[in-house]
Amino acid sequence: MDDQKEVTVQNYKGWEDFYNIEKSDKLDFFMRDGRMIDILFAQQFDRSFLDSMCRLATQIRRMALTKVGARKLSSLLSHKRAMLYFVQPSTRTFISFLNACHILGLKISEIRGTTTSSEVKGESQEDTIRTFASYVDLIIIRHPEAGFAEKTAWILNQNKLPVAVINGGSGPDQHPTQALLDIYTLEQSFRNIGGLDGKKIAMVGDLKRGRTVRSLSYLMRNYKDITLYFVSPEIFQMKDDIKSFLKKHRIEFHETDDFAGVMPHVDAIYMTRIQKEYSEAPAQESDIYPNFHFTKEHLAVIQSHCIVLHPLPRRYEIEVEVDKDPRAVYWKQERNGMWMRTALISYIFGVADKIAVEFK
Amino acid sequence: MDDQKEVTVQNYKGWEDFYNIEKSDKLDFFMRDGRMIDILFAQQFDRSFLDSMCRLATQIRRMALTKVGARKLSSLLSHKRAMLYFVQPSTRTFISFLNACHILGLKISEIRGTTTSSEVKGESQEDTIRTFASYVDLIIIRHPEAGFAEKTAWILNQNKLPVAVINGGSGPDQHPTQALLDIYTLEQSFRNIGGLDGKKIAMVGDLKRGRTVRSLSYLMRNYKDITLYFVSPEIFQMKDDIKSFLKKHRIEFHETDDFAGVMPHVDAIYMTRIQKEYSEAPAQESDIYPNFHFTKEHLAVIQSHCIVLHPLPRRYEIEVEVDKDPRAVYWKQERNGMWMRTALISYIFGVADKIAVEFK
Amino acid sequence: MDDQKEVTVQNYKGWEDFYNIEKSDKLDFFMRDGRMIDILFAQQFDRSFLDSMCRLATQIRRMALTKVGARKLSSLLSHKRAMLYFVQPSTRTFISFLNACHILGLKISEIRGTTTSSEVKGESQEDTIRTFASYVDLIIIRHPEAGFAEKTAWILNQNKLPVAVINGGSGPDQHPTQALLDIYTLEQSFRNIGGLDGKKIAMVGDLKRGRTVRSLSYLMRNYKDITLYFVSPEIFQMKDDIKSFLKKHRIEFHETDDFAGVMPHVDAIYMTRIQKEYSEAPAQESDIYPNFHFTKEHLAVIQSHCIVLHPLPRRYEIEVEVDKDPRAVYWKQERNGMWMRTALISYIFGVADKIAVEFK
Repeated sequence: MDDQKEVTVQNYKGWEDFYNIEKSDKLDFFMRDGRMIDILFAQQFDRSFLDSMCRLATQIRRMALTKVGARKLSSLLSHKRAMLYFVQPSTRTFISFLNACHILGLKISEIRGTTTSSEVKGESQEDTIRTFASYVDLIIIRHPEAGFAEKTAWILNQNKLPVAVINGGSGPDQHPTQALLDIYTLEQSFRNIGGLDGKKIAMVGDLKRGRTVRSLSYLMRNYKDITLYFVSPEIFQMKDDIKSFLKKHRIEFHETDDFAGVMPHVDAIYMTRIQKEYSEAPAQESDIYPNFHFTKEHLAVIQSHCIVLHPLPRRYEIEVEVDKDPRAVYWKQERNGMWMRTALISYIFGVADKIAVEFK
Repeated sequence: MDDQKEVTVQNYKGWEDFYNIEKSDKLDFFMRDGRMIDILFAQQFDRSFLDSMCRLATQIRRMALTKVGARKLSSLLSHKRAMLYFVQPSTRTFISFLNACHILGLKISEIRGTTTSSEVKGESQEDTIRTFASYVDLIIIRHPEAGFAEKTAWILNQNKLPVAVINGGSGPDQHPTQALLDIYTLEQSFRNIGGLDGKKIAMVGDLKRGRTVRSLSYLMRNYKDITLYFVSPEIFQMKDDIKSFLKKHRIEFHETDDFAGVMPHVDAIYMTRIQKEYSEAPAQESDIYPNFHFTKEHLAVIQSHCIVLHPLPRRYEIEVEVDKDPRAVYWKQERNGMWMRTALISYIFGVADKIAVEFK
Repeated sequence: MDDQKEVTVQNYKGWEDFYNIEKSDKLDFFMRDGRMIDILFAQQFDRSFLDSMCRLATQIRRMALTKVGARKLSSLLSHKRAMLYFVQPSTRTFISFLNACHILGLKISEIRGTTTSSEVKGESQEDTIRTFASYVDLIIIRHPEAGFAEKTAWILNQNKLPVAVINGGSGPDQHPTQALLDIYTLEQSFRNIGGLDGKKIAMVGDLKRGRTVRSLSYLMRNYKDITLYFVSPEIFQMKDDIKSFLKKHRIEFHETDDFAGVMPHVDAIYMTRIQKEYSEAPAQESDIYPNFHFTKEHLAVIQSHCIVLHPLPRRYEIEVEVDKDPRAVYWKQERNGMWMRTALISYIFGVADKIAVEFK
């Protein structure tokens, strides 16, 4: 095995150097013809991009409602092929991406699970990636290793392979399409009251390990006058890196464990689940922190325009009875994931303008 | 876990009430715009529906033989998306439905196996179903739990989600598309001798647990002057619920263990397999009941128009040499499953008239 | 179980006889309307077929580069359905075939893994195959059993089922599409220096069990003045059956363990991996035979037109640094697999002429 290891290390030398570059300094590396070709981390998104993706997602959603529109969408990329490479299981994200591809007519290869037969035969990770890239135009990756999707994009770009990469979640690290769909849901819900700018958002639950709320916090620098409330038990407080980031970008935030006190004052409540999966010393099943749950009684307490979000799946954090209230937008948020991913894929392949033209 | 259970029970209260309503009293709940939108149990089918589905299946089968016809079919629903949710494995039924969808051009998401990653994360069954419904237009379900497909349709209808549901087999309970394909095969085989009305049908084997023969018996009330022969070892006799149903609807039936005696007198012989899967005290491999097998010698005994059916897969019940006889229709019956499922899906989505117009 | 066995043996009697016929004497059995309908073993290919497949693969590769061409290709067989039946895992071959089907628009059913639910229920192999054939127009099979794909084609032809079969690798036996893509890569690389005729080819590594080099050796009889160099450790020497075949067809070959000595004189070097999978007494991980590796130093030794091939996946046999040299064609070879399989499928379904017409 020593032989094998040497080969690997030698090849990775360039990658390790690249990985340590500040994300903001390498955005151009993932662009081609003036467009992002690889969607890897939330730092790639500026306000103009976020706004145009939200617009595009809405256009696609409306087009898909009509038979003519749905048929037109399904032919846009029917000559393209994508691979869903999901090393880490995630039924929800998988099906959301799969159907986003289906809406646009892409043909799909699925690799689910941890090992391919080639890995069994001793193939290196790099060779496996190059192989997948031999057959398709787009690789959507979910992987437990932080930076894996970025490494894939780096390998393909180094080898001048014209294959796009989307990060569908890389361990505790990044989940950029989730951040996009959260932004979209916030903007959409606030469209009649000035959009996301100037709003107060409570993030509730396991903020320490919750990838979703971390990514969303990063994106807040693109919006004006945001106030964040980090509401969690002490052991699940938001980490310092995010707090430093917010201070640097002068984004107001408050930390508290008083959910009831915060509730009446905010415009949006982003509930999260205790993430058993990434836990090293996992919370007990009994540790369900009822003070950080949202119940039907709370519906009387929050503002009439205040929306409730959740990345799903949920367990106890939101009572089922809450679902019926129009301010409970998490089911819409889930569906928005499919529309936003459809928007993103049509952007990457340069057919967004063919959708926009429908709405002139 | 108690918290979780309470939520579930609370939510199910409405469902349990609904489930206990007589099936014939809730048919409207599964209709929209004058069409069935959910196909859940054989009690939904009346003679007019059965006749039109048989006609449609034949039209589709013929269209698919020509390149022009096959291409037209494959574009009919190319803008729609379906999910095959097969919690209980069944390669045959899965591939039959999958290819029915392919014939009409639907895009497919597959969930095979017992657990999704969200269930691992503690998501409730209801939430999982709502999630699936977020992404697709049709869910085809196979599940070991009686009533599960009906519950799915109920949840989606309660939440006003415009997603169709087809029951692809729910445990020992119902398998309505199997019943449809059986009817189609009988009608098709008897098309030159007056159709299914007035025929004598022997059902042979494990009638106690055989879902297929149970569903088919229910559907007999739609046909005139049917006589049924239930041929089985004593321990596998047809259950009382079916026999009461037949008496109520004045359908003649006889029970016997004398297969040889019945054979020469019937128009159709429906062979079944001993169902090991649902067995609580399973039959031994050695219990193969040779008196209830159909062998090549029997071909000389049955009538010249008498057909032999089997839901497949078979084990010992029908000798391989029988296959070559034109009266052995089980392979045609299997293929009819695909055509009938294609007919059903095109009916649900309201494109049946676009097929029929070809045959004016 | 005895009952079951008897049935099986009875049914196989005809097959065993057929299987023992010389391959060259049964080519017609796998043809229809003047075309091969089943692609099972390399002995089916003559020079004219090989040349036309290489031409067709190039035409498809070029068409797929343009949007108009890619769209035309993806509609050619959009009304056809294929099944990928991969009992033996092989991610690479699977994805290559899958995307070949996608390029032509075929709809795909996937069966991966060793057991289907019907096999669990005691269904015979023949019945499973007939079932699969009920639903699709093409079955692509990978199976650990030598002759399995041929048996499938035989069963389907015996039952007059108009379903094509492609062998995607049958144990240690045959892998005809790999042989085709190897030929294509050789012909393509030598297109400016007279093609494959007259060339010297070194095959390196485990020649004893390497299915790839065995198939390629067989195909050499279709080319003029080929010289082969079998370069291997003594325990992995090419078997006598191939050597007899080459002698019979007067193809020059040399055996040696002196890779360094052969290297400067040949036009192509076909590297292979030690095949752990089929090993009965497996080579130790430590037995990596460095004298049979190709390193970056060797690039200075080989001729300027000499190409390096590998069926992939690789382990130690070729240093990663070699990849950048234009003479390292194994990544192109891998991608050629997809083009060649696309060519083959379009040939089987009789749409090759619709591709060729584009290039008049």
